[in-house]
Formats: sequence, C-alpha cells, structure tokens
Amino acid sequence: MRTTLELGKEIGYAKLSIEAVAARAGVGKHTIYRRWSSKGALFLDSLLSLNKSDLDYPDTGDIVADLRRQIHAAMDLLDRPPVGPLYRALIGEALLNPQVAAALNDHFITPQAEKTLARLKAARDQGQLSPGFDLDLAMDILSGPLYFRALIVQEPLTHEYVDRVIEALFTGMECRP
Amino acid sequence: MRTTLELGKEIGYAKLSIEAVAARAGVGKHTIYRRWSSKGALFLDSLLSLNKSDLDYPDTGDIVADLRRQIHAAMDLLDRPPVGPLYRALIGEALLNPQVAAALNDHFITPQAEKTLARLKAARDQGQLSPGFDLDLAMDILSGPLYFRALIVQEPLTHEYVDRVIEALFTGMECRP
Repeated sequence: MRTTLELGKEIGYAKLSIEAVAARAGVGKHTIYRRWSSKGALFLDSLLSLNKSDLDYPDTGDIVADLRRQIHAAMDLLDRPPVGPLYRALIGEALLNPQVAAALNDHFITPQAEKTLARLKAARDQGQLSPGFDLDLAMDILSGPLYFRALIVQEPLTHEYVDRVIEALFTGMECRP
Repeated sequence: MRTTLELGKEIGYAKLSIEAVAARAGVGKHTIYRRWSSKGALFLDSLLSLNKSDLDYPDTGDIVADLRRQIHAAMDLLDRPPVGPLYRALIGEALLNPQVAAALNDHFITPQAEKTLARLKAARDQGQLSPGFDLDLAMDILSGPLYFRALIVQEPLTHEYVDRVIEALFTGMECRP
C-alpha cells in the first residue's frame, strides 16, 4: 500500500495501474488481485492506511475553536498535494464504481461524520448550542461547501474560507426562531 | 448526442463506449472521434444538449420562494433517474479527467452559478437581503450540502431537505452582527 501511494504521488492516479504497483513492489500482479479486485479498491485502502489521527476532534470546551482546528487540519491533509489530487481522484472513482463508493463511505466518510456529530452533540449537551440545533444539517453545511469548492468549482480551499463557513453556520443556526 | 443519452439511460455510464454509440447510431467510430476526444467529452455535450430552461430562475420578487422553486426543479432533473446517475458519473469523470472538468465548469457549473448569483444580487438590490449579504458564500451554502449528499454520502435528496438548507442560510445570514 505504501508503494501504491508513492507511485500515485509520482505519476498521478490516472496513470496508476495494478501492474505498475506490482512491478514497483517486485511482486506478481495476481498477488495484488487476490486481495483487491480493482485499482480503486487498492487505492482506497492505501489512502486509508495514512495516519489520520490529525482528523480527530480536540475538545477544549470551545466548539468554534475546535471545529476550526479540526477542519483546517483536515483541509491541509485532504486538499493539498500530495494527498489532495489523489483524494479527488478517489472520489471520482467512487462516483463511477459503487463498490469503491460503499467502501469509501463505510471506512472514511461515515466515521469522520460521526466524529463531527459527536463533537457537535457534546457542545449541545454543554449548552454551547441551543437544544434545537440541527446536528445533521450542521454537518452538511460544514462539509458541503468545502467539497463543492474542491470537487465541483475546483478552487483551492483556504483557512479563511473555512472560517467564513463556520461563522455563517453558527450565526445562522443560533438565530433560528 | 441523443443516441448517447438513450444508450446511457439503458446501460449506464460505466458500460457506455464510443464504439457502442457509433454502432447504435449507425456511423463509424471515427466520425465520433473527429468531434469528441473521449467518452467523457461526448457524454458532457450530450447532457448539456438537454433542455435546461427549467433551471432558469423565476423572479416573483420573493427570493426565498424563487430559490425554492428553482432548486427543487434542478434537483428533480439532476438527482433523479434517468439523468441523476448519469450526472453523477459525469462528475466522477470530471474528477479523473481535467479536460472534462474544465468543460463541465465552463459550460454548466459556472453559468448556473452566475444565474444564482444574479438572482441573489437582485434580491439584495431590492432590499430583501442586507447590504452585507455574502453572495458567493450563499451560493456555496446553497449548492454545497446538496452536492455533498448526492455525491459523497450518496443519499437521495428531498424537497424538504432543500427547504432546511435554504432556511438555515437565510436565518443565518440575516442575523449576522
């Protein structure tokens, strides 16, 4: 899996193939195919093997500061080279291959969303957010604009942009009638 | 292009090929390759050939009602079969092929965003939104969660969900200090 990532960083996802990974790793391609059915599946596991402890949420008691810190860290990892272009390619692969989509959701998207929800829920329980605060919608309003800019508009994300999204979310949600 | 869409609806994007389109249309594949360099490019033009007048914004003077009507219509077209799965596949292709990404942005995403911005700006000029209302961010907070659910979480979108996003946006943005 380390070989897959190294090669991906060197030549990009489009040129990556199971044959090329096998050649670089010095194993037969069937050794790889026995464990991974496609390039997308191999690549997903390789990206997931990265240390993602940076993506855990701190809990300093200040929900806004903690969200900022975690989302800045996630963006620095997932939106910048070398991982950024590979992560975008993986999502492209997931949109074309339902098996990759299911694995990506089960092993990365859903667990990450659960961490965000848990941190928001703790803040609500501590009275930092109003009791009616809509946790699921908040999750989407935090993640959605970032994915939209990264995947659709394809512009680089900045910390300042993240801060504007967070501000809009909290100012908005707390002012609900 | 009509043949491409017909075939796409029948067999899905993954199985679609320029050869299959040529065979169905009764032309040589070189006839198609002369105009489109890849399956992604052909498919993009085919989707763009659909009548998209439903995606124009009404201006009844009520910004919330007009956004709701337009976004519901866009969602009914882009998220539901038969177009929905094909549109998601096209975005997957765009993430793997920068030429398709550039064409998709130039011919669809940017013009649509400009329509949304124009409608929001008209509302701001009419005093329906505060002078400091952040049009670009509003655009992302409207589109982002919808794309996030459709592409990443891969759950079906509902009109009720759109309404929650719109409500969060306006309650939020208008309550800013």
